[in-house]
Amino acid sequence: MNIDLIGLGKMGMGILRNLSTKDGYSIHCTDINGELKAPAEELGAVFFPSLSELTASRQGGTRVVWLMLPAGDLTNQMIENCLHFLEKGDTLIDAGNSKYTNSQKNEQLCRNHGIHFLDVGTSGGVDGAANGACMMIGGKQEHYQAVESLFKDLCVPNGVLYCGPAGSGHYLKMIHNGIEYGMMQSIAEGFDILAHAPFDYDLEKTARVFNHGSVIRSWLMELTENIFRSPEQLDEIEGIIPSSGEGQWTIEEALRLKIAAPVITQSLLFRYSSESKDRTTEKVVALLRNQFGGHAAVKEEGK
Amino acid sequence: MNIDLIGLGKMGMGILRNLSTKDGYSIHCTDINGELKAPAEELGAVFFPSLSELTASRQGGTRVVWLMLPAGDLTNQMIENCLHFLEKGDTLIDAGNSKYTNSQKNEQLCRNHGIHFLDVGTSGGVDGAANGACMMIGGKQEHYQAVESLFKDLCVPNGVLYCGPAGSGHYLKMIHNGIEYGMMQSIAEGFDILAHAPFDYDLEKTARVFNHGSVIRSWLMELTENIFRSPEQLDEIEGIIPSSGEGQWTIEEALRLKIAAPVITQSLLFRYSSESKDRTTEKVVALLRNQFGGHAAVKEEGK
Repeated sequence: MNIDLIGLGKMGMGILRNLSTKDGYSIHCTDINGELKAPAEELGAVFFPSLSELTASRQGGTRVVWLMLPAGDLTNQMIENCLHFLEKGDTLIDAGNSKYTNSQKNEQLCRNHGIHFLDVGTSGGVDGAANGACMMIGGKQEHYQAVESLFKDLCVPNGVLYCGPAGSGHYLKMIHNGIEYGMMQSIAEGFDILAHAPFDYDLEKTARVFNHGSVIRSWLMELTENIFRSPEQLDEIEGIIPSSGEGQWTIEEALRLKIAAPVITQSLLFRYSSESKDRTTEKVVALLRNQFGGHAAVKEEGK
Repeated sequence: MNIDLIGLGKMGMGILRNLSTKDGYSIHCTDINGELKAPAEELGAVFFPSLSELTASRQGGTRVVWLMLPAGDLTNQMIENCLHFLEKGDTLIDAGNSKYTNSQKNEQLCRNHGIHFLDVGTSGGVDGAANGACMMIGGKQEHYQAVESLFKDLCVPNGVLYCGPAGSGHYLKMIHNGIEYGMMQSIAEGFDILAHAPFDYDLEKTARVFNHGSVIRSWLMELTENIFRSPEQLDEIEGIIPSSGEGQWTIEEALRLKIAAPVITQSLLFRYSSESKDRTTEKVVALLRNQFGGHAAVKEEGK
C-alpha cells in the first residue's frame, strides 16, 4: 500500500514508527520541519521537503494520504492542496482531532473530486500511535473496507471501530475526549485531597494499589502512578491546563442536544480558569469583598 | 488462621468464597439471615445463627474477626459486642465502608481492650471480593504484619497497601470512591450524548473500542460495555442513583481542607438531584418562570 504521510509531529512520527514494523507499506512523507528527514528515513520512509515534491514522487498506483496535522486551518488547507494532485479513487484520511462538522464539509469536498475521505479519531496517545492505537472511523463503508487492513495494522486487537458516515469518527473521538476530561479531573481532585490529607500517603503506591483490583483501575491511573513516581515534576510545571477543542465541542454538543453534562463542563471550565492570565473574576470577587466587608485583598508582590 | 466472619451480604459471601479456595483457614461465620447457613457451609465454613453461638464455638487460639457490615450504627454496635468476647491480642478487622473518623474511634476503643484493630477499605466490587480484591489497610503496622498473609490471599497481586495509622485505610477508600463518582458520571454523560447523537452508534461496540488502546480504557468502561450489551436494562430501571456516604464524606473533607473539587462535587449533587422525590427545586423554578414570563409549567398527569 502506498502511504503518503503528511505531518511528522509526535503522533505522525508514532504512526510512521508503527507502520515501519509492518510489511507491505511504501511510505513517502513530508513535514515543514526538515530536521525530521533523518529520523523518518531511519524508519524506512522516503522524506520530501515539500508537498509538491511528495506529490511528484509517485508514478501511478492508488494513493492513501494520511494527514496527521493540527486540526482547523492547517488541516483544511492541506486537504485543499491535496485535491490538486489526488486522483479519483485515492483515499484521504484525516486522523487529527478535527471538529466533526469540519470533517463533514471536507468529505463533501473530496466526494466532488471522487476522492474517498475518511475521518479518523485516534486515541492512545503517542505511545498508542507507535505501538498500537485505538481508532474510530467515519466515512463510506466501502471506502473504509478498502483500507481496513491499514487500520488493523496500526491498532491493538479490537481497537478499530467503523462508526458510520463522514464525521462520525471525529464525533466519537470528541466525546471520548470529553469523557477523558472528566476522568482526569476526578482523579486529580482525589489526589489533591490525598496530598493534603491528615495521613502521609505514598501517592505512587496509592495509585499503584488503585490499579490492582480496584473499581477505578484504568490507564489514566497508570499514568497517575508515573506522575507520583517522579513527584518533583509537580514542582517543575505551572498549574495550567491547555485544551485543544474537543472538550469545548463536547459541551457545545451537550448544549445543542440539551443534555446535562455537569462534570465534563466543570472539567472544561476548570481548565479555562487555570489558563486565565489576568484572573479578572478572582480579582473582581476579592475587590467586592474588600469594599463591602473590608476583607483584605492579597496585594501583588511589589505593588 | 481462625477467622470469624460476621456479615454474609454480597461482599461478605464474596470474601468467604475467596477464602474457601485458600488453604489454612478455619472459618466460623454468622449472619442475621439464617438462610445463608446452607451456602456458607457449602463453602466449607461453620455457620452460627447468632454472635453468642459463634463466640462460644472456639476453644482457645487467637481469633481474627472480619466484619463485613453496613457502615455506621450496625458496625459500631457489632464492634462493641465483639469486645465482650475478644481477648488481648485478637484482631478485629472492619472491612466495610466506615467513615475514617469512626474507625479512629473504634481503634481507640479496641486499643483500650488490647485488641488489634485494622480498618480496611475494600475495592473491586462483589467480583473482586470473591476472586481477588484491592485492599487499603490502616492500623498499627505490627498488627497489620501479623495478618498480612490473609490480605495477600484475598487480593490480586499488588492489590494490598498498608496505608498508615488507624483510619488511613478507610480514608483512602473514601477518596477512591469519590474519584469513582466522578469517573462514572463522566462516562455516563458521554454516553448520554452519544445515545442522542446525530450518528447511530452501536454503544456496546463503542465502549468496547474505548477499552482497546484508548486513553479512557478502564474497568468502569468494561462495565459500561456490559450495560450496552443488554441495553434493555436502561428501560427497566429508574434514573435514581443512591449513595452510601463516601462521596459526601469526600466533599466534606475537600471543604474542610479548602480544596476545589468541582467534578466530584457535581457527581454527588447529580445523585442527590436524581433521588429527589418531590423535585421542589425544579417545581419552584418552573413556577417562577410561569409567574414572571407566563411560561407554561408541565402539569402532572390527572391534576
